[in-house]
Amino acid sequence: MVAATAVKVRPAQRSDAAAMMSLIRELALYEKAPEQVTVTEDHFVESGFGPQSVWWALVAAAPDPGGEGEQIVGFALYYVRYSTWKGQRMYLEDIIVTEAWRGKGIGSLLMDNLIATAREKQFSGMMWQVLDWNEPAIGFYRKYGVQFDPAWVNVSLEL
Amino acid sequence: MVAATAVKVRPAQRSDAAAMMSLIRELALYEKAPEQVTVTEDHFVESGFGPQSVWWALVAAAPDPGGEGEQIVGFALYYVRYSTWKGQRMYLEDIIVTEAWRGKGIGSLLMDNLIATAREKQFSGMMWQVLDWNEPAIGFYRKYGVQFDPAWVNVSLEL
Repeated sequence: MVAATAVKVRPAQRSDAAAMMSLIRELALYEKAPEQVTVTEDHFVESGFGPQSVWWALVAAAPDPGGEGEQIVGFALYYVRYSTWKGQRMYLEDIIVTEAWRGKGIGSLLMDNLIATAREKQFSGMMWQVLDWNEPAIGFYRKYGVQFDPAWVNVSLEL
Repeated sequence: MVAATAVKVRPAQRSDAAAMMSLIRELALYEKAPEQVTVTEDHFVESGFGPQSVWWALVAAAPDPGGEGEQIVGFALYYVRYSTWKGQRMYLEDIIVTEAWRGKGIGSLLMDNLIATAREKQFSGMMWQVLDWNEPAIGFYRKYGVQFDPAWVNVSLEL
């Protein structure tokens, strides 16, 4: 068993895309909506690493127990939200730790690195969303002194 | 009185920024949170028209009754959201029509242009948020066949 302390957080690279997509599918299953993942890996790669990238991510990489490589055990993906009230903010789209690696502080490691990144980029704040029934996630976020605002309802239009 | 049919929708220009900021403050007042607008006009302009722009907007311009100029009576501002499930989507941050010009179809004109823009840019869909007590807005959006999803709660962390 590799200790969680050996896990390093670094910016995502193009070669991490396949591992990230696997984690995205794993999370969709947990959120009871696997059929909702309709994005392709090509579109994902182009949107994150192409000339006009629209997302950025940090990955948590553990040393591969079998060799010299590494294994992506979690990631956090964000884009820039522009709030007409607060200016540029980090919008945290996903923070995922694969099931076998939960409870080892990797989510906190990712969050701490996100906060540091948001400060470096001079964002006025961070925001994200949580499902109202996801008690473990709500409890995790509460530790950071966040505000929860249930008054806003998501509206979507498929094209 | 200028007829609403004389109102034209076009992409926002740098010279529209002051008029847009006025409308932002007007909306914040309506949403009972005027003190929440802490963004400066410089930051607003840089974020929309600088070398690394993070937002785009359409404005609704009416002929100025007193002369040859025009008056900005509404706008819609968006950024690119990256959904790890759905890919690139238009995130509609604000759609505003100034009070004196409401009920004349300008909101619909902006929405129709937004939908056309989102299709042109090949976004997979559009999303936005509405306050759960804002019945006029909810009724307006309902006409577009949107989905409302109240299960997600906004979480924010100020930095």
